[in-house]
Amino acid sequence: MPNVHNTPSTPESSINATKPGSVGIVTPITLHFDKSLTLQCGKTLSEYDIIYETYGTLNANKTNAILICHALSGHHHAAGYHSSSDKRPGWWDACIGPGKAIDTDAFHVISINNLGGCHGSTGPESINPDTGIPYGPDFPIVTSKDWVESQVRLADVLEIRQWAAVIGGSLGGMQALQWSIDYPERLRHAVVIAAAPILSAQNIAFNEIARKAILSDSGFHNGHYYDKDSFPKNGLILARMLGHITYLSDTAMREKFGRELREGKLKFDYDIEFQVESYLNYQGEVFSENFDANTYLLMTRALDYFDPAAEYGNDLSLAVDRAKCRFLVISFTTDWRFSPERSVEIVDALVAADKDVTYSEIDCPQGHDSFLLDIPQYTQLFKAYMQGIAQEIS
Amino acid sequence: MPNVHNTPSTPESSINATKPGSVGIVTPITLHFDKSLTLQCGKTLSEYDIIYETYGTLNANKTNAILICHALSGHHHAAGYHSSSDKRPGWWDACIGPGKAIDTDAFHVISINNLGGCHGSTGPESINPDTGIPYGPDFPIVTSKDWVESQVRLADVLEIRQWAAVIGGSLGGMQALQWSIDYPERLRHAVVIAAAPILSAQNIAFNEIARKAILSDSGFHNGHYYDKDSFPKNGLILARMLGHITYLSDTAMREKFGRELREGKLKFDYDIEFQVESYLNYQGEVFSENFDANTYLLMTRALDYFDPAAEYGNDLSLAVDRAKCRFLVISFTTDWRFSPERSVEIVDALVAADKDVTYSEIDCPQGHDSFLLDIPQYTQLFKAYMQGIAQEIS
Repeated sequence: MPNVHNTPSTPESSINATKPGSVGIVTPITLHFDKSLTLQCGKTLSEYDIIYETYGTLNANKTNAILICHALSGHHHAAGYHSSSDKRPGWWDACIGPGKAIDTDAFHVISINNLGGCHGSTGPESINPDTGIPYGPDFPIVTSKDWVESQVRLADVLEIRQWAAVIGGSLGGMQALQWSIDYPERLRHAVVIAAAPILSAQNIAFNEIARKAILSDSGFHNGHYYDKDSFPKNGLILARMLGHITYLSDTAMREKFGRELREGKLKFDYDIEFQVESYLNYQGEVFSENFDANTYLLMTRALDYFDPAAEYGNDLSLAVDRAKCRFLVISFTTDWRFSPERSVEIVDALVAADKDVTYSEIDCPQGHDSFLLDIPQYTQLFKAYMQGIAQEIS
Repeated sequence: MPNVHNTPSTPESSINATKPGSVGIVTPITLHFDKSLTLQCGKTLSEYDIIYETYGTLNANKTNAILICHALSGHHHAAGYHSSSDKRPGWWDACIGPGKAIDTDAFHVISINNLGGCHGSTGPESINPDTGIPYGPDFPIVTSKDWVESQVRLADVLEIRQWAAVIGGSLGGMQALQWSIDYPERLRHAVVIAAAPILSAQNIAFNEIARKAILSDSGFHNGHYYDKDSFPKNGLILARMLGHITYLSDTAMREKFGRELREGKLKFDYDIEFQVESYLNYQGEVFSENFDANTYLLMTRALDYFDPAAEYGNDLSLAVDRAKCRFLVISFTTDWRFSPERSVEIVDALVAADKDVTYSEIDCPQGHDSFLLDIPQYTQLFKAYMQGIAQEIS
């Protein structure tokens, strides 16, 4: 049985954390699992930790639990603050909190860091019990199916028989879709935002360049860089910069940066000239200090490998025919990473399988990143759907 | 006055070169210019070479000359073969040759390698006369305006007072547009294909990642790698792979590669799994053996800096108001590097300035690379326009 390492602390006072709509100060919880988990790749993790956070109160019959699945560079810290001095809240604070789309006055929200991550759950940075040193590249590649398995085990420990909803954007939405197929009895709703039923060749191609940038960095040391004096910082910066472009729309970049020069006039060299270069470099630099390169490799492969129809003769409608939950699918007009057409592929398969699906394409300029933002048309629609769930379970 | 180093040889027999529609065997010509050229950046090239090829015969009054401007990774070898054993023709052989869109039975076509290039014209690989070693990073950044200046000088030497047309795709189309503004008397037509009036923030961002991949490669040696035992091969591969994605449409990649696996089943590692990865890596590898990294840096900056409206209060219609030529502007529906909307910006400015412009958006799946291909709707329209020019000058 798992051991709880931490328990949530009492909220402290904080300028940010006491704002209306904030879940306040939160403390992550780590659960240790000593039952081995065999992964899709065939390898086994003999034991592992899962770190998660919770927001809102679990009701007596445990019917109001929501699972949040994160995307490529996400983690468990989705809402609130870790301390009163925290300047930035969790990554989905726009949508999680009292009165927000995922209303913590109604729901008990559980947000986890996936296996293979680098924020507390067991991943490449963790010590391999077989060797006594970090796994590094020996950490097995984990897939969305594996994540669902590990999330089921968490639900079992927490005695949550059925999630009110499993929710995620991008790779998180893919996990929600996988849940609906693999454990149809264990969720009432799947909310699949800015996702795709499978990566396209172009999606895979971008991931491959990101991986190559990391793998070919002289600081990579074949993935065993944790005890070295260098790590693949530059490769990770390149990977993040490239990812970042795909998260923003051309329109959003144009509105945000245009062709503004950093120093007001051309310098005719290869240093940073344009604000957009400065922004991407800065964001890449910050990311490289806060994310593990081996985890980045793993997460991109998890995206490449996502293929819920594979076991069903590559027929997505046959795959989702197993589902028993209802679906909310949301896309964004300017998202070119996973365009509305990709969401429509999911919707079409659900309709073909005669499932209950609500679909909305939100018209906004912010691109793939829209799913993280407080865009009224989006958050209001999302909130209305979630209120319907709250009524069902009350 | 320039010295002619080579003259075209008599065509030899060749399986490919004797095909109908081929210009046959061609031999490049190198002109040396000993009159200094001051560039937009303020630096001066005291002397330089320009390499070019010609196809078709110049008429007696020299009115049938066509200038071909190349794109980022292009060069002077646009059509025909360099020897009878050549397997692949020049890069625009689909459009240049007897009976083709740019009909060498009607026109005398001149195709040059731009200054800063790496295929024979003076560039970073060339010996800096001031130091006796290759320029490397000391080669000044050349812009589209500079290229037009150097092309004007070539025209002067060849006594071509007025081009029947200046033609290019992508960065080549931008040069054609620049010609129409800077030397309005010296061209009858500008053919601007798959271009944009200026790069967007997203365009610049992709270029920045490509540059960063090169600049941060341990083989870059601050750009002085020509006498070292390594060069920024990996950075150049990454840059090319990234560029390549932007040349293809999502649709084209899907049709060409889908999610096909190289070995038929998943391996669960970071080696090449998917055919699209294999293809991009191979293309990047080949490119890295045939292109100079310093030139790649320069060409991406030339793109970033292209801004013909800058001298005209950022009003493109005011800039093109100077033009006296007629325009053919062509875009491709699935081109997301320079989308049809970007061509329409050019067309709108031309219309606002009351210029004579023909515009066509070609519906095809091949993305930006379409301009290089024999797509019937495209090449037939292009040919019809060029036939009109041939009639004017006959």
